[in-house]
Amino acid sequence: MSPEHSKLLLSVDLAGTFLFAVEGALIAVPANLDFLGVMVLAFSTALVGGIIRDVLIGASPPASLRDWRYATTAFAGGVIVFFLHPYIRAIPGPVILTLDAAALALFAVAGTEKALLYKMHPFIAVLLGAVTAVGGGTVRDVLLAQVPNVLRSDIYATAALAGAVVMVAATKLRVNPTLAAISGGLVCFSLRVISVWQHWNLPKAFTG
Amino acid sequence: MSPEHSKLLLSVDLAGTFLFAVEGALIAVPANLDFLGVMVLAFSTALVGGIIRDVLIGASPPASLRDWRYATTAFAGGVIVFFLHPYIRAIPGPVILTLDAAALALFAVAGTEKALLYKMHPFIAVLLGAVTAVGGGTVRDVLLAQVPNVLRSDIYATAALAGAVVMVAATKLRVNPTLAAISGGLVCFSLRVISVWQHWNLPKAFTG
Amino acid sequence: MSPEHSKLLLSVDLAGTFLFAVEGALIAVPANLDFLGVMVLAFSTALVGGIIRDVLIGASPPASLRDWRYATTAFAGGVIVFFLHPYIRAIPGPVILTLDAAALALFAVAGTEKALLYKMHPFIAVLLGAVTAVGGGTVRDVLLAQVPNVLRSDIYATAALAGAVVMVAATKLRVNPTLAAISGGLVCFSLRVISVWQHWNLPKAFTG
Repeated sequence: MSPEHSKLLLSVDLAGTFLFAVEGALIAVPANLDFLGVMVLAFSTALVGGIIRDVLIGASPPASLRDWRYATTAFAGGVIVFFLHPYIRAIPGPVILTLDAAALALFAVAGTEKALLYKMHPFIAVLLGAVTAVGGGTVRDVLLAQVPNVLRSDIYATAALAGAVVMVAATKLRVNPTLAAISGGLVCFSLRVISVWQHWNLPKAFTG
Repeated sequence: MSPEHSKLLLSVDLAGTFLFAVEGALIAVPANLDFLGVMVLAFSTALVGGIIRDVLIGASPPASLRDWRYATTAFAGGVIVFFLHPYIRAIPGPVILTLDAAALALFAVAGTEKALLYKMHPFIAVLLGAVTAVGGGTVRDVLLAQVPNVLRSDIYATAALAGAVVMVAATKLRVNPTLAAISGGLVCFSLRVISVWQHWNLPKAFTG
Repeated sequence: MSPEHSKLLLSVDLAGTFLFAVEGALIAVPANLDFLGVMVLAFSTALVGGIIRDVLIGASPPASLRDWRYATTAFAGGVIVFFLHPYIRAIPGPVILTLDAAALALFAVAGTEKALLYKMHPFIAVLLGAVTAVGGGTVRDVLLAQVPNVLRSDIYATAALAGAVVMVAATKLRVNPTLAAISGGLVCFSLRVISVWQHWNLPKAFTG
């Protein structure tokens, strides 16, 4: 990996980290958590997906614990929400949705890429890309003693999986890595945005 | 380990994986999860116990992420339940119980064997055998925001522990490995089946 | 590390393990768990924080699974509570509080020291010290399907963080390791005890 590529990955990761941290903290504030609880939820939402991926692929210690900038970025997102949440809540829903879809796409693609780099089977790399993208939010919901939203509704993990599949397929077809990442990211982002706009959901089992 | 032994372990693992996945999915369907949620619960119930064991003994990446057949088997169990759960629910209770006790025994014995292979202390190997057998179901219950059933009632983890103890003792006594595994498995299986049949439970602390 | 230092760390770890196990079991008994559930909560409260730390720093298998004395100590705490909990509950609150604050300080300092030993960044070592101290209690609460208390109120994780910061700062200033550990421990212990005595809490975000 060239230094430029590596630097791009870092910037992309930190931007997604900040966004997910802000979203995690926005959920923590009304849940009656104290300052520490808000920080923990910001950190978990932003970084635990990638930490789980790194533990599973044997990249130890996890990238987000090797470089202090990840945790700092997550806590920065938490602090901003803690003090300014009324203003952040005023940001229009579609803006938040679009940014979240972008962060989802970034995490899914970066997670898949790292799993492939560690020689995981393509099918497993797809799963690990999705874990990177939605693992943090899942742990956040578990810490709030709630059934993770991602298991119930919305095309969210599904969009991450779709992006990861495209990323893996493009890599196997020896597409240029940057192009592969962009294609995967665009598929994830578009599917997520269109599914919210069109009120798409996954089916539930027929239990009538 | 001979190739035959290794192949037997794989088949046994995949059969147990399928069974646990079916059981996890059967719990997910009435919990109002969508298709993705049913798949996640099938995967977690079947494979997370072994993944936790592998992370703890330092076998990284975990066996079930090195070989795509594990995840595929778990998802197959989930898909079958998703589409055919009314038929699967029609299977008589004692059949499910017997198959589940068999899968419990297989996982407990395989988990203990792998922990011993990685030079864990016999006492710790017993605990890791039980984690392999009941860890997935515990995570499934946590994802459903419920106190894991295994902490509350039934001789379930206890049966896994008993089988693991026999397995370890037989290994220490230099019994033939296949015989040690069969003995451990039979003890776990029998204890589980008899305990359900006889309504045995572990005591609770006296709080009157 | 000299053998004496290593022996001191072990004794300190085992004492803290016993205390945390007793506290975990005291919470498990009224939660209607059976004997196995009480043992699992004793083990989790006492050892899972350190296990998470070891998995994250790549110290695999975790120290508490390499040495059978940790699990045995935790189960001993659980068994004592299971049979004698009415007597243990009769211990005056301030005694429990003081012992718990001491165990918190020990775990925070030992966790931070180990993270530094594994070359983690000082900032990350502080976080891992706190995870060592409060991770087990957090997992215990998750197993009871409750929002972890540490996210909601009290100066608890905060005291662990403060002790870890002092420990890291003293180490960076090349203070004698024993003195660094004692300073960090005293800060954590004092902050915890004073905060309970003075009813200090962390602020919550203004949501009025």
